[in-house]
Amino acid sequence: MTALDDRSVQPTVTSGPIKGSRKVYHEVTGPDAAQTLRVPHRRVELDNGSHIDLYDTSGPYTESSVDIDVHSGLARMREEWIRDREPVGGAVTQAAYAEAGIITPEMRYIAAREGMDPEFVRSEVAIGRAVIPANRCHPESEPMIIGKNFLVKVNANIGNSAVTSSVAEEVEKMVWASRWGADTIMDLSTGKRIHETREWIIRNSPVPVGTVPIYQALEKVDGDPAQLTWEIYRDTVIEQAEQGVDYMTVHAGVLLRYVPLTARRTTGIVSRGGSIMAAWCLAHHEESFLYTRFEELCEIFRRYDITFSLGDGLRPGSIADANDEAQFAELRTLGELTHIARAHGVQVMIEGPGHVPMHKIAENVRLEEELCGEAPFYTLGPLATDIAPGYDHITSAIGAAQIAWHGTAMLCYVTPKEHLGLPNRDDVKTGVVTYKLAAHSADLAKGHPRAQEWDDALSTARFEFRWQDQFHLALDPETAQAFHDETLPAEPAKTAHFCSMCGPKFCSMKITQDVRRYAEENGLSTVAAIDQGMREKSEEFSDRGKRVYLPVAEAD
Amino acid sequence: MTALDDRSVQPTVTSGPIKGSRKVYHEVTGPDAAQTLRVPHRRVELDNGSHIDLYDTSGPYTESSVDIDVHSGLARMREEWIRDREPVGGAVTQAAYAEAGIITPEMRYIAAREGMDPEFVRSEVAIGRAVIPANRCHPESEPMIIGKNFLVKVNANIGNSAVTSSVAEEVEKMVWASRWGADTIMDLSTGKRIHETREWIIRNSPVPVGTVPIYQALEKVDGDPAQLTWEIYRDTVIEQAEQGVDYMTVHAGVLLRYVPLTARRTTGIVSRGGSIMAAWCLAHHEESFLYTRFEELCEIFRRYDITFSLGDGLRPGSIADANDEAQFAELRTLGELTHIARAHGVQVMIEGPGHVPMHKIAENVRLEEELCGEAPFYTLGPLATDIAPGYDHITSAIGAAQIAWHGTAMLCYVTPKEHLGLPNRDDVKTGVVTYKLAAHSADLAKGHPRAQEWDDALSTARFEFRWQDQFHLALDPETAQAFHDETLPAEPAKTAHFCSMCGPKFCSMKITQDVRRYAEENGLSTVAAIDQGMREKSEEFSDRGKRVYLPVAEAD
Repeated sequence: MTALDDRSVQPTVTSGPIKGSRKVYHEVTGPDAAQTLRVPHRRVELDNGSHIDLYDTSGPYTESSVDIDVHSGLARMREEWIRDREPVGGAVTQAAYAEAGIITPEMRYIAAREGMDPEFVRSEVAIGRAVIPANRCHPESEPMIIGKNFLVKVNANIGNSAVTSSVAEEVEKMVWASRWGADTIMDLSTGKRIHETREWIIRNSPVPVGTVPIYQALEKVDGDPAQLTWEIYRDTVIEQAEQGVDYMTVHAGVLLRYVPLTARRTTGIVSRGGSIMAAWCLAHHEESFLYTRFEELCEIFRRYDITFSLGDGLRPGSIADANDEAQFAELRTLGELTHIARAHGVQVMIEGPGHVPMHKIAENVRLEEELCGEAPFYTLGPLATDIAPGYDHITSAIGAAQIAWHGTAMLCYVTPKEHLGLPNRDDVKTGVVTYKLAAHSADLAKGHPRAQEWDDALSTARFEFRWQDQFHLALDPETAQAFHDETLPAEPAKTAHFCSMCGPKFCSMKITQDVRRYAEENGLSTVAAIDQGMREKSEEFSDRGKRVYLPVAEAD
Repeated sequence: MTALDDRSVQPTVTSGPIKGSRKVYHEVTGPDAAQTLRVPHRRVELDNGSHIDLYDTSGPYTESSVDIDVHSGLARMREEWIRDREPVGGAVTQAAYAEAGIITPEMRYIAAREGMDPEFVRSEVAIGRAVIPANRCHPESEPMIIGKNFLVKVNANIGNSAVTSSVAEEVEKMVWASRWGADTIMDLSTGKRIHETREWIIRNSPVPVGTVPIYQALEKVDGDPAQLTWEIYRDTVIEQAEQGVDYMTVHAGVLLRYVPLTARRTTGIVSRGGSIMAAWCLAHHEESFLYTRFEELCEIFRRYDITFSLGDGLRPGSIADANDEAQFAELRTLGELTHIARAHGVQVMIEGPGHVPMHKIAENVRLEEELCGEAPFYTLGPLATDIAPGYDHITSAIGAAQIAWHGTAMLCYVTPKEHLGLPNRDDVKTGVVTYKLAAHSADLAKGHPRAQEWDDALSTARFEFRWQDQFHLALDPETAQAFHDETLPAEPAKTAHFCSMCGPKFCSMKITQDVRRYAEENGLSTVAAIDQGMREKSEEFSDRGKRVYLPVAEAD
């Protein structure tokens, strides 16, 4: 009997399409017909007859007629791929295949999702600049990639604590977070039933799942860090590996000699994993087993193709502590470990801060790339200021957008409850949507080839007063429409050439449409041609425009 | 009888201190005793016996025992200052006094608010790099400054439209917005009772009030731009000047020859004022009267000391249109007008976009400073992406924080309702708090001498588990506490060494306190000293720490 046979757990998960969108699959043919891939997209059909297909993380839950049975788990799409391929050099990791010049089905799938060439996907994985977190024991996942030359990804943390939340709630949070765009999920549970919660999440998760194994290991020694041992930790890692965890945070860079560097900080050590390992080091006066046993850990990770997420246990917890000696000392060690892991054919990403004022953000990326051989950077925000608890999804989105522009490959979301409490369902959605817009802002700034078409589609809908299209193209169609309807709920207002912001008389876009028609009809394509043309046509415009209708979408 | 005698209007305004803070006044003595200034601050008294005084925009409404009579308006603090001083060179503007080497009481007041030297305030105003919007007919206002070398300021737009909202609502929105930190207010009313609404707002406003006079002028010609004339516009400006409007948006850079440059844009002209003037220019085939009569306008502004806010009528309304020819052509014209206004002794700031992807933000500031002689830049966001209607306070805060770091002096807020409808009271608060945190992030990045002490105070409170202090130091104490109490409402939780995010067993900060005490007690101030020291002390630590208590404030 597996955890999913437990009928006392009855998760109710959200399903059905996102408002105004429907799931489509792009068929991608491979070397032979059996290898045809079906790659999901969120299609928005527009009132003007066109459509746009957007990257889709939501799994089968957003299909139109979907029969979800959380007790069975999702279909095991990757099972045959995994079964059918031979190890290379004894390794079965995406990195090993990539280095051997082999393009896996996962890579082809990713190429289709991202609009990239499969060979480019392979080469980025081969040099370690991108990772594909895909444990062989999580065949239900839809392959995705994390790397600076791909779309910026977003992770959502879920997980219960001793104080709140149940197994069923966490499963729904996973479905809910990926519905709104979370590219991966981290299960940070620390309370009861850690193993069962994780089993439910993984079997039903279309996105990669990450964990911090030290949390569960600590539960096994009843919360006393000094009692932790390599053996307990190792067994916990294997237990989670067998379940299918795709990437694991390992705070192997918290060295004994770095701990005193945190002594004069404003906020000391703020990472849970970091503080656990610091306590262990001090209690034993030994280097952490995560560091001394790192190569053994690599061998386990290599067997399952688990990706390292090397944790920044000494990251700054406040503006005052940003970019300090402790932080960068640990980063140097993470760089050493990166090279060791890669030598084992194991994929690696590097976790980053935290709390960093804007002028110190770029330095974080520069150093990480230099020290860690361009391993994908995975940052928590960072918050650009500490003064706004309750709004830390925003303080951190400011930092996140910038650090992603500079090269961070994945952003760990922050919810409005950060520093205050455990996020609920609404907070999870707010956090994910906020981080998706930050990530997309970075995609735009980096010039990702497909990023701007989404903005253009929405702006054109706005300009043409296609209100429904504007809602449906939004990251969060429900909220966009609800806000509109709050002041103008009537159905005709959805096609009206104004909103309540400016009212009918002051809403301005038809004027531009007039200007455009006027200029184009008269061939006024250059400034030089305008003076003559306009002089002739001014009276005509005046006649035609009569009482000019002024549409304006924005306050001035 | 003035508008305020109208007893049918009964605004109910929010009053009383912000939770956990109280109003204090710093007394600043001047050349003689009569010139002693009382400069307001928001004081947060901390549980550890210390306190911090924060910049305070809220006016008398946040005094502990305040008797507000909206029918009388606020006290006219500046009345004597204005009355008692002689013109210099025929001018009574702050710029003229500054150029003449005179430090006005307004400048002394501002210096005390900002923690700067009065002479520095004067010199920045003298060269036009900062402005003090302070109409002589608005003696109720508390002097403030807008300039890149001072704290970044935030404007909140309010104002009714034909569709929604009443006079009383707008007065409360003004009080409410300045309560949460709005440094100026723009009254963008376009519906009924424009004049009365504005009178109520100005007489009760402790912050400078801005308007866009063309809106009211357009109402006077029943909404037909072609019927606008210089005379109607001029009379409207004088009407508003007499009421005390401190700065006015004037779209004098929308030239006839620029209009066709918008024809092939994705979103054409999105500024209301810009589209009105474009329509006028096309209908008449003449250069806009705002441009041709600009010097006459300067003379009016000079009489009252109204500050120009030269509007960017051709700003981009979408990512696609950012930094295009139309936008920068207009900016060059605004540069010419800046120099004309300054020659008249009139203060000038320059409005900026709008919608700009991150990689095009810095160029906006660079060009504005070059073309407009470093006149303060006043930008609307900009939004870093178009795909998130309903979250545009966040998409724009991402751009706002960056552009402010680069040098924008004031940010015009954006609320969650942007592009969708008129903001309500909650939206106004969300918009203001979001922009305050963006502005403060920029203050930190620019190294404003007093910015980081606020972050440090809050982070230290967080580290020391002073929950109440953490709430009280927040930009929005009510929301911070409400979020905390949602999962841990009991009173003891306010002093507990954990929150619901990680639960009691996993909350980590005591470990750092242990580390710190350990390191300091043993003089482990350098890495070199650690190895020996730690070896000796490890057993001792293990004894003392026993079951180590793990506090952690953040998810890992």
